[in-house]
Amino acid sequence: SRSINLAVIPGDGIGQEVVAEGLKVLSAVLPQDVKLETKEYDFGAKRYHATGETLTDADLDSLKRHDAILLGAIGDPSVPSGVLERGFLLKLRFAFDHHVNLRPSKLLPGVATPLAGQPEIDFVVVREGTEGPYTGNGGTIRKGTAHEVATEVSVNTAFGVERVVRDAFARAQARPRKKLTLVHKNNVLTFAGHLWTNIFNKVAEEYPEVTTDYIHVDAATIYLVTDPGRFDVIVTDNLFGDIITDLAAAVSGGIGVAASGNINPTREFPSMFEPVHGSAPDIAGQGKADPTATVLSVALLLRHLGYDAEADRIDAAVAADLTERAGQPARSTSAIGDALAVRVAG
Amino acid sequence: SRSINLAVIPGDGIGQEVVAEGLKVLSAVLPQDVKLETKEYDFGAKRYHATGETLTDADLDSLKRHDAILLGAIGDPSVPSGVLERGFLLKLRFAFDHHVNLRPSKLLPGVATPLAGQPEIDFVVVREGTEGPYTGNGGTIRKGTAHEVATEVSVNTAFGVERVVRDAFARAQARPRKKLTLVHKNNVLTFAGHLWTNIFNKVAEEYPEVTTDYIHVDAATIYLVTDPGRFDVIVTDNLFGDIITDLAAAVSGGIGVAASGNINPTREFPSMFEPVHGSAPDIAGQGKADPTATVLSVALLLRHLGYDAEADRIDAAVAADLTERAGQPARSTSAIGDALAVRVAG
Ligand SMILES: CC(C)[C@H](C(=O)O)[C@@H](O)C(=O)O
Ligand SMILES: CC(C)[C@H](C(=O)O)[C@@H](O)C(=O)O
Repeated sequence: SRSINLAVIPGDGIGQEVVAEGLKVLSAVLPQDVKLETKEYDFGAKRYHATGETLTDADLDSLKRHDAILLGAIGDPSVPSGVLERGFLLKLRFAFDHHVNLRPSKLLPGVATPLAGQPEIDFVVVREGTEGPYTGNGGTIRKGTAHEVATEVSVNTAFGVERVVRDAFARAQARPRKKLTLVHKNNVLTFAGHLWTNIFNKVAEEYPEVTTDYIHVDAATIYLVTDPGRFDVIVTDNLFGDIITDLAAAVSGGIGVAASGNINPTREFPSMFEPVHGSAPDIAGQGKADPTATVLSVALLLRHLGYDAEADRIDAAVAADLTERAGQPARSTSAIGDALAVRVAG
Repeated sequence: SRSINLAVIPGDGIGQEVVAEGLKVLSAVLPQDVKLETKEYDFGAKRYHATGETLTDADLDSLKRHDAILLGAIGDPSVPSGVLERGFLLKLRFAFDHHVNLRPSKLLPGVATPLAGQPEIDFVVVREGTEGPYTGNGGTIRKGTAHEVATEVSVNTAFGVERVVRDAFARAQARPRKKLTLVHKNNVLTFAGHLWTNIFNKVAEEYPEVTTDYIHVDAATIYLVTDPGRFDVIVTDNLFGDIITDLAAAVSGGIGVAASGNINPTREFPSMFEPVHGSAPDIAGQGKADPTATVLSVALLLRHLGYDAEADRIDAAVAADLTERAGQPARSTSAIGDALAVRVAG
C-alpha cells in the first residue's frame, strides 16, 4: 500500500490558514489506499523569538525523513530582514539542494490580470535555486563608517548551471510548444553570462526539437507585460528568477494563485512546495487569504511524487473554481478550500 | 553669450535616425543667442570592426571637453555580447563617474500601455550607475570545463550609495508628493542590503518632509503593474535599476518614449543622455523608429545644463504630440521629429 509522509510547515502570518486548506484538498484528492501521514513543524518567527533558532541540524535530520515538505509562508516584521530568509528559507533550499525552483504561470479564463486584453499566458520558469547571488558569499568591511564596502558574490558553476539547464530542456521537450528561453544579463555580467550561455547552447544540441532563444532580464520584463504569450519554458539564475517570477505571478492572476516547487530531482532530499506569496501579516488571521496558490503547490507536490492523476484533478478544480469566481464576491480562505475539496473529491 | 558644446554619438542601428531628430528639436528649441556646437563621434559596431577599438583614452580626452553628450544607441548582433556594452557604454559611465542614472516614467494621456484601465503613472527612478554588479569584478576559473566557476561581484560603497541616495532625496523633496522608495533585496543580499538600508534611513532623517518606504525588487515588479501610482521617486542599485526601468518604460508608454540621463552631478565630467531603448537593428534605416525617447533625453540634457524653460517646452510638445498620435496611423521617424520641432519653436 502506498503512503505519503509529509512535513508540514505552516509558518507565519497567513501561512497557517492557507496550509490548512492545502491539506484539506490533499486529503480529499488522495485515493483511499494512500496513507497520508503529516508532521507539523513550528518554524518561523514565533520559534525564533522563543529560542533564537531558525533551523537546526536536528531539524534538518528530522525533515530529511519525509517524502516532501509543504510550506505556508515564513516571515514577520518583528524579525529583522534576512534572519528568517537566510536562516530558514534559503538554508533549507541549500541544505536539501533544491536546485530546480519550478514556477508555472498560467492565466486561466476569467481570472483578473492587470494587463489589458486578457492575453494568453502559459509558461513555466525554471529558476536555479542553489547558486548565483543567493549563496551568501560576500561581506562587509568598515561597517557603519563612511568607508564601508559591502560585496555580494554571485557564484555560478558549470555543474550547477548544467543540471538546471538540462532540467529545463527536458521540460520544454515534454511540452507541446517545445520552446526554451534563457534569461540572463550576459552583456554586463559577462563571466556568469558566458558560462550560462555556453552551457545552454551546448545542451541545446541534444534537443534539436526544442526552439531556443535568449533574452536579457531587463527586456524579459518588457515581454512579460507586452507579449507574455511568447514564453513557454524559461530557465534563469536564482536572482533573475526571483524577480521575473513575481512579475509573472502578477500578470497571470496575482500571487494569490502562484505556486512553486523547490525541487531536488535526484530525490536525495525531500523537495519543498510553497506558494510564491509571503506571510502577508496585514491580513493574517482574518480568513481573507487566498489558499489557491498553496493548493496548486500541493498539485506540484503530488506530481513530483508521481500522483499525476490527482495533480491533474487539483489543477482542473482550481481552473473551474477560478472561472466561477469571476465577478462574484470574495469568499473566505476556508470557503475556497471547501469548494476545492468538494471538486477534487467529486 | 551662451553656448552648448555637444558631443553627438549616433551609434548603431536606429541610433543615427533618432539622434538626427533629437538634434533637430534641440536646434529648434534653443533661443537665438545660444550657440550650439556639435561634434559627431563614430563609436559603435562599425568602428569596432574596422579598428578593434571601442573607446580609447584619446576618445575620453576628447569627449571630456564637451558640455554634455547625446547618444543614440550602441550595439549590433555582429559584435559579441558584452564587447560594446562593457567596452563602450559602461566604460564611459564609469570613466565619467555617471553615478546618477535618471529615468523618468510618465504615462501621458492617450498613450498606449499594456496595463488595463490606463492607470496614473508619474515617477522617476534614480538608478546608481557606477557600482553594484556592474563593476566588472569577478572572473572565471577552469573556463570551458565541467569544473568552471564564474563569479560576479557586486561592489557597494558607503561613498557610492550615499551620494546617489542623497540625490534621490533631493529630487523627492522637490516633487509635490515628496515620496521616496528604496528598492533592493535586503533580505537575501544582506551585506549590500544593510549598507543601502542604513544609509537610506540615515539620510531620511535630514528630510523629514519626505515619506519613505522600502520594497524588495521582486515585489516592486508586482507594484509596477498592479499599482504604479504608488511610486514617486525610486532609488535603487545599478542592476535592479536596469531591470525595473525597462519594466517601467514598458508600462508607461513603451521604450519608444523612455528617456534617460547618465549624470555626474559634480559636473567634473560631462553627463550623457540617451534613450533607454537599444539599436533595434531589425527596424534600422527604415524610418520606423520613434525618436521621442531621444527627444525627451534632449530635454533631460537641457535641464541638466540649466535650460529649464526649453526643457519644459520639449516636454509639453511631446505630451501634445503623443496625445494627438492616439489612434492615428504611425508616422515616420522624421515626421515625428518635424512635428516636435515645429511645436517647440512655436
Ligand atoms: C523570501 C525570499 C528569500 C524568497 C527568495 O528571494 O527566493 C522569495 O522572494 C521567493 O521568491 O521565494
Ligand atoms: C546595454 C546595457 C549595458 C545597459 C545596462 O544594462 O545598463 C542597458 O540595458 C541600459 O539600461 O542602459
